[in-house]
Amino acid sequence: MSRLNHILTIAGVGASAWLGGMVSERYRLSQKLDKPGLPIFSTVSAATPLESPAIIKPVNRVSEIMRFGFPSLDNIRSLDDFVLSYDKRNRVPNWVFEHITKDSVKKNDKVDRAKCDFYEDKSVHEFFRSTNSDYKGSGFDRGHMAAAGNHRITQQHCDQTFVLSNMAPQVGKGFNRDSWNRLEMHVRKLTNFYKNVYVCTGPLYLPKLEADGKSYVKYQVIGKNNVAVPTHFFKVIVMESDSQKLDMEAYLMPNAVISDDTPLNVFQVPPETIERSAGLLFFDKVARSKLNKINGRWA
Amino acid sequence: MSRLNHILTIAGVGASAWLGGMVSERYRLSQKLDKPGLPIFSTVSAATPLESPAIIKPVNRVSEIMRFGFPSLDNIRSLDDFVLSYDKRNRVPNWVFEHITKDSVKKNDKVDRAKCDFYEDKSVHEFFRSTNSDYKGSGFDRGHMAAAGNHRITQQHCDQTFVLSNMAPQVGKGFNRDSWNRLEMHVRKLTNFYKNVYVCTGPLYLPKLEADGKSYVKYQVIGKNNVAVPTHFFKVIVMESDSQKLDMEAYLMPNAVISDDTPLNVFQVPPETIERSAGLLFFDKVARSKLNKINGRWA
Repeated sequence: MSRLNHILTIAGVGASAWLGGMVSERYRLSQKLDKPGLPIFSTVSAATPLESPAIIKPVNRVSEIMRFGFPSLDNIRSLDDFVLSYDKRNRVPNWVFEHITKDSVKKNDKVDRAKCDFYEDKSVHEFFRSTNSDYKGSGFDRGHMAAAGNHRITQQHCDQTFVLSNMAPQVGKGFNRDSWNRLEMHVRKLTNFYKNVYVCTGPLYLPKLEADGKSYVKYQVIGKNNVAVPTHFFKVIVMESDSQKLDMEAYLMPNAVISDDTPLNVFQVPPETIERSAGLLFFDKVARSKLNKINGRWA
Repeated sequence: MSRLNHILTIAGVGASAWLGGMVSERYRLSQKLDKPGLPIFSTVSAATPLESPAIIKPVNRVSEIMRFGFPSLDNIRSLDDFVLSYDKRNRVPNWVFEHITKDSVKKNDKVDRAKCDFYEDKSVHEFFRSTNSDYKGSGFDRGHMAAAGNHRITQQHCDQTFVLSNMAPQVGKGFNRDSWNRLEMHVRKLTNFYKNVYVCTGPLYLPKLEADGKSYVKYQVIGKNNVAVPTHFFKVIVMESDSQKLDMEAYLMPNAVISDDTPLNVFQVPPETIERSAGLLFFDKVARSKLNKINGRWA
């Protein structure tokens, strides 16, 4: 197989299974180096260490998680139970991707969230890495994009959700600890009705019309490393039923205090709204017309 | 050679020559499809057409341009005489990369800028594509990142700099048409003293301390597609002398009216300043300590 052919395969049909295999192999290698994940398509550079080849497993956890396509391939990190793309300019994820089932989210007495500590992602260049001190005193929570409660099979799965490259600054009371948490719980509850749930989560920076009649994007940055405080967050979810039917839900919530009695479906939006704002395409290996329901309505 | 090994090669030492070969082959294929360039590491998706393999030329124009490393590998488009990374969220480039010489920038009566028209980049998904109507009536110029005057070997080279994925909204009078143009001319003049000049150009979105004591990033967006108006622009330049010595210059200019008598060296900054803000590493195949001069001073 020619080199070019390999790359065309990466960019082509059905390649994510293989890409997943590769990503995960690299991840396993990186584990030995005490890193939470390795950049895959990062800068092509003499600074990038060349690792020795390892055996490829074509089907694995990453290919399961990314079954319906990567929203982008910028700075991918694959952890044991979720995959993320890191935004080096804003020092938060572009997106994180999870695959959850009834089994993976059920209570497990061997896994204790209280044992987890937030830790820096040493695989991110120090120029672009967020740190605990960036968040300290900022008034914002270190908000999980891949939720800790979605990764309860092993303690290590839970631990890895505490890597700072999985965080974005979130309003704590009234949002991260309340309505955003309600949305996370809703996603987990979907596993009671669907055999597979795939969820992509990330930040948004939405423009606002100001008094001068012009639209502006405006967001705070915190800490020495200027970690961006997103104006909004999204979740786009695909659920697979026992009969292989696919439903989708898409949520867009402001990073702000939200009253606990606001029903979650108030935050449902057409998935295209999020795609245009995020600069990402979600689940694009599934034609929208093939979906059964979007936001509870027949698509 | 195993698949994994191929990918490690992409991410590793000395791979840009080969990647360049691949990118350019894809570009040549894409030309037949009447597209200005193809996404290389875009979404892994069933929607991505699988093209037939072609002959690989290990050394070519892209590898010449990208000789000292890619700042990132997000949505790369390679055109005949420059390479760009497109920011799908902001609908402007992340960066563009050029390699110029005395010959490539000299006046050529066969190449006429007046014959060029701004055109949409059809290789960008319509959700993320900027259009002429986004700019119309905005008060901002369609500002070239790869300068038209740097591509004078053929009319097609010049034409391709008018693709809208090479543009960002710039203040016209006092900036794009004046001080920014002075900087572009300065870069071209460097070819009188150096055999090779490599220049990376792009937008920045810099935070500002506001009256409440907090830092905010704020920028206007224009048109139906919310094209971002960067707060600043950068150029990072590496120049190679006849004796293979490398010098670097780095400029950061506000997207604002600048007095014509402001000397350009006022806008020189340490390259790290731009790297941290842009979320990019420039020329990272060359250790900074190996540079002869940075901004005119011995490094």
